[in-house]
Amino acid sequence: MRGAILYAPGDLRVDERHDPKIVESADAVIRLSATCVCGSDLWPYRGIEAVDGPSPMGHEYVGIVEEVGSDVRTVKPGQFVIGSFFASDNTCEICKAGYQTSCVHRVPMGTLGAQAEYLRVPLADGTLVATPDVPSDDLLPSLLAASDVLGTGWFGAAAADVRPGKTVAVVGDGAVGLLGVLAAKQLGAERIIAMSRHESRQKFALDFGATAVVTERGDDGVAKIKDLTDGLGAHSVIEAVGTQESMMQAIRSTRPGGHVGYVGVSHDVELPGQELFFSHVHLHGGPAPVRRFLPELIDLIWNRTIDPGKVFDLTLPLDQAAEGYRAMDERRAIKTLLQP
Amino acid sequence: MRGAILYAPGDLRVDERHDPKIVESADAVIRLSATCVCGSDLWPYRGIEAVDGPSPMGHEYVGIVEEVGSDVRTVKPGQFVIGSFFASDNTCEICKAGYQTSCVHRVPMGTLGAQAEYLRVPLADGTLVATPDVPSDDLLPSLLAASDVLGTGWFGAAAADVRPGKTVAVVGDGAVGLLGVLAAKQLGAERIIAMSRHESRQKFALDFGATAVVTERGDDGVAKIKDLTDGLGAHSVIEAVGTQESMMQAIRSTRPGGHVGYVGVSHDVELPGQELFFSHVHLHGGPAPVRRFLPELIDLIWNRTIDPGKVFDLTLPLDQAAEGYRAMDERRAIKTLLQP
Repeated sequence: MRGAILYAPGDLRVDERHDPKIVESADAVIRLSATCVCGSDLWPYRGIEAVDGPSPMGHEYVGIVEEVGSDVRTVKPGQFVIGSFFASDNTCEICKAGYQTSCVHRVPMGTLGAQAEYLRVPLADGTLVATPDVPSDDLLPSLLAASDVLGTGWFGAAAADVRPGKTVAVVGDGAVGLLGVLAAKQLGAERIIAMSRHESRQKFALDFGATAVVTERGDDGVAKIKDLTDGLGAHSVIEAVGTQESMMQAIRSTRPGGHVGYVGVSHDVELPGQELFFSHVHLHGGPAPVRRFLPELIDLIWNRTIDPGKVFDLTLPLDQAAEGYRAMDERRAIKTLLQP
Repeated sequence: MRGAILYAPGDLRVDERHDPKIVESADAVIRLSATCVCGSDLWPYRGIEAVDGPSPMGHEYVGIVEEVGSDVRTVKPGQFVIGSFFASDNTCEICKAGYQTSCVHRVPMGTLGAQAEYLRVPLADGTLVATPDVPSDDLLPSLLAASDVLGTGWFGAAAADVRPGKTVAVVGDGAVGLLGVLAAKQLGAERIIAMSRHESRQKFALDFGATAVVTERGDDGVAKIKDLTDGLGAHSVIEAVGTQESMMQAIRSTRPGGHVGYVGVSHDVELPGQELFFSHVHLHGGPAPVRRFLPELIDLIWNRTIDPGKVFDLTLPLDQAAEGYRAMDERRAIKTLLQP
């Protein structure tokens, strides 16, 4: 089959890869209907994370079940399914508490390479959720978004304790931040302040439910959020970047007793203990347990209540994955959908 | 009047101070029935925090109202009252959310010096809570404990989301940690693991409700907590020290999705972002909003359901405050009660 392989920073090619097969009795193999490029794929692409030899890429996927192992009970060949970036058993204590990305048996999907024609999914019963039927093509982008970026933005909003009547600020205008805006809207936030300097992304944010845009960053951005909230700060802040500046911007934009939900993968972040102590904020985040939210998100998409697929502003055949990476690296595209 | 003054690190003397008077119309002046020495008083006493000229000391107090300003409505002369280490209006949005130590009008009580015969309390209506009657002397230690250490341990347990059926670990065996054990017990924890190397403090912990003691610290302590929790970590961890080692011990002892409640004042703590991200814990803490809990704590003490006053293992006349500091500095005493 064909699949994307990162050979070295900047050197992404679609080449022949071995067809995946059932290895464990809990596996499924799916034929991908759509896959995409994640912001986190850009870390090794840019050489900020080490590339340790040729690496299959991709961890976002929707598709049709081709074959299942002998122990798989809940998904069947022919079903359309969605999974996320960690396979999980969904039965351990950690999964039952809603933290499937920390499942005691979790398997990172990134190493299996979802930017391809076929994908082996371990722990299929715990990992995959089937849609009510095979969806029409126009639903594919939104269902694919549920695999990671929507689920991650949703977790950011849940971790930030977004509730009806609350004021929410969102740090980061990438796909996750924009879908954090959408999640905050769905969860009933009264005011949603998107922090973005990019006009095209501001439009997306307003379209997804933002009620105000703040273009300032860092301390100036914090001052602006305080101005808009009687000097107190937002009740809930979603952090969707993962840098020192964005984390401090999020913490400082939150009122005492408020909540920071952080879903940007932390890179070189050190949080000052004393400032955090006196900030009085709640801090929660990490790799989004997308599996927790999948049934609800599929429902909202299936009923056409939400349309998160709009974040894909570039669609390319899988064979042109390299251009998909370049467009995101150069910020010409928010997120690239790849058609196998 | 007489009051404790820190002239320089190690140089604590009880000297003549001006009698406090009503300054603002919202003030009360109280005659102290009991006061005490806090672990945080030891930071400047040890010279770890700067001493900027002679400083009145103390921020824990119970006593009888002597006089109130013209705007005070809810407390009256003759009432026995308890306040905490920040005066707060208890009406602003932050107070109403339960974060009175971040009140928009807060006044730090430490600068007013509660280790004395009399104390001016700003924002008296918002700050002071009266007991049902003037208490008998044997209740004084427990009511005084509610002013800070009990309220702080309680907030640690609340911030760590302690609930019935949960497994709780407590890092730190000072007065706050020990009363964190008591709080966890009251909040219904099924198992409470006290981390302590000191035999006398282990006894206190077991007396307050601990079901197990772990003597190891750092990574060995974490391994022991994991051993006791099927490899997962505790649901809730109360951190009551405030050092880098104790914070990392707390975070690493918590299962993914679990809660760390940290109430040790952070000194030279830097939290590594990536480890925190993948730990999947909830982190909350800061200066305990004791005022939130005071009515409930007074009730539990008044009904003799709890006896937190046991943490005072040394009682001295106010004039011997210097010995009270020395005994705590040398860890000969857990906590010193001073009788004005």
